[in-house]
Amino acid sequence: MNRAAHLVLCFLALAACGTGSGAGAPAAAGPAPDPAGRWALAIHGGAGTIPRDLPAERAAAYREGLARALALGAEALARGESSLEVVEKVVRLLEEDPLFNAGRGAVFTHVGTHELDAAIMDGRDLSAGAVAAVRTVRSPIGLARLVMARTPHVLLVGEGAEAFADEMGVERVENSWFDTPERREAWERAKAREGEDRDTVGAVARDVQGHLAAATSTGGMTDKRWGRVGDVPILGAGTYADDRTAALSATGKGEEFIRHGVTRAISARMALAGEGLEAAARALIHDVLAPGDGGVIGVDGGGRIALMFNSEGMYRGAADSGGRFEVGIWDEMAAVPRP
Amino acid sequence: MNRAAHLVLCFLALAACGTGSGAGAPAAAGPAPDPAGRWALAIHGGAGTIPRDLPAERAAAYREGLARALALGAEALARGESSLEVVEKVVRLLEEDPLFNAGRGAVFTHVGTHELDAAIMDGRDLSAGAVAAVRTVRSPIGLARLVMARTPHVLLVGEGAEAFADEMGVERVENSWFDTPERREAWERAKAREGEDRDTVGAVARDVQGHLAAATSTGGMTDKRWGRVGDVPILGAGTYADDRTAALSATGKGEEFIRHGVTRAISARMALAGEGLEAAARALIHDVLAPGDGGVIGVDGGGRIALMFNSEGMYRGAADSGGRFEVGIWDEMAAVPRP
Repeated sequence: MNRAAHLVLCFLALAACGTGSGAGAPAAAGPAPDPAGRWALAIHGGAGTIPRDLPAERAAAYREGLARALALGAEALARGESSLEVVEKVVRLLEEDPLFNAGRGAVFTHVGTHELDAAIMDGRDLSAGAVAAVRTVRSPIGLARLVMARTPHVLLVGEGAEAFADEMGVERVENSWFDTPERREAWERAKAREGEDRDTVGAVARDVQGHLAAATSTGGMTDKRWGRVGDVPILGAGTYADDRTAALSATGKGEEFIRHGVTRAISARMALAGEGLEAAARALIHDVLAPGDGGVIGVDGGGRIALMFNSEGMYRGAADSGGRFEVGIWDEMAAVPRP
Repeated sequence: MNRAAHLVLCFLALAACGTGSGAGAPAAAGPAPDPAGRWALAIHGGAGTIPRDLPAERAAAYREGLARALALGAEALARGESSLEVVEKVVRLLEEDPLFNAGRGAVFTHVGTHELDAAIMDGRDLSAGAVAAVRTVRSPIGLARLVMARTPHVLLVGEGAEAFADEMGVERVENSWFDTPERREAWERAKAREGEDRDTVGAVARDVQGHLAAATSTGGMTDKRWGRVGDVPILGAGTYADDRTAALSATGKGEEFIRHGVTRAISARMALAGEGLEAAARALIHDVLAPGDGGVIGVDGGGRIALMFNSEGMYRGAADSGGRFEVGIWDEMAAVPRP
């Protein structure tokens, strides 16, 4: 660090000492559980090049899909359900919605099939489960939850993960069950150029007990090949939750999110550099990643929500116990009626 | 943070300002490349419950295997080869050595086969490649290097990764090629209890240009099932390299290393909390992880080496341009002759 920067930092450290806020010192652990019944929920349905001239009825369909998932989670959190239950439930609903690239509606691989990845993490104790490259499991997020609950492992892949699904009695479907005409068209287009379709779904929640959880599920990138796995099932890349910092779910160019360990890096900035969720998410999305790489949603122990992206848009929603209930696609977030 | 701790931190921040070392402020990027031709290399062959009464001839065989790999890497670094070339070369040699749980000599899965994971990362630009659950690729680390060099992806798994290996003309072998009588016996023993055999091999290097790289390869845990993948191919868990902080390779209970994102967390403590490599590695291995979980090796931009573990032992070696050439299994490190 040069001398001038050093002096500025020393001044800031002194100022922090004067006010007692300790900005220059390592951050304390997150806030204590909040007995006042506050909760918060954020969801996403992928970030990327969402054309501004998206037909109005299609934009409306996305907003409705987001609002439906948001309402399901908001009601469950208000009833006192745990953040872990709620993020799984919300992501399951988004997996079933053919609009989103997760579960039904997943993108096509290079050979015309679907390979799905998902992860879930519990901020209470950092327990986690993930699956990658599964082909016949109707709800990948449900299987990830079972990996967490019923095995000593974190990540199961491919046929092994499907054998585990059978042992657990989890519903399996034909690979073609995930087909949708829209994704097939996108794949046909993608074969002529590099795959661009990299959407994902995710949910992060803070429950009334103050606990955090995150869940993410995806079909990966259109026209992917060679068993490619992206950031979603990589804890610390696409998915992370720690009660002491935040619950986070990312979407975008998975390889960049892996290299920079985006969700873990946001958590580390909060824990080690005393940054708030918003500032830490901004640093990763706008300073570390390149424009167009994607976005991240997060909720911290105080129920603060961050929705940050550097792409053309991000399908997203946010709700909390203070009455917020909003969805957005491009710059704006707008309050919507609860479905 | 309580008032007393706050005052102590403010005092430390003031002291740092007085000396100009900036201990309380975010750390600057790593040291500038060193033109003096310094280099450093650390390797490991796994951490775990290594019985103190290991027969002397077997301990000697491990030490010889480590010294051979160390000598190969040390000579290459002294010749000016890049850290990336060297960590791949060293790990390839360890993969071929049947003593270690990587490549030939990999542990057996629950169904009596082998599934191999590996990752490599270049600290210059955070480029990386990894493979998981491959069954027939003779050198998983070599395939990981090709994922980095020849695809836009970071992680390929299972059959897809093997199809990629074929496209690259990479050598494939029968799965039984990885068999060794010792691992089969360990598997027979393990079936009666929980698998304990979780060794791994890894190498981290700082080349004469000041660049860092890390590589790790493993057969995973004995008797693993359901396509279980551990921390090795998860960038930020078992493997990470960033010129601004350190190159790191871990070994131990993979799931714990994933949950805590151990290698990325060490890098983050160096970048954000101004800790040195040794202190950051100690914090993760001794404060965050539980006794017996395993260990990590690292080298920073200045060529400082850390070899940290909380298990009974860790097969390891360290060499540098200052003449250090040592291997160790339990507490001690001892200088050995170069093979």
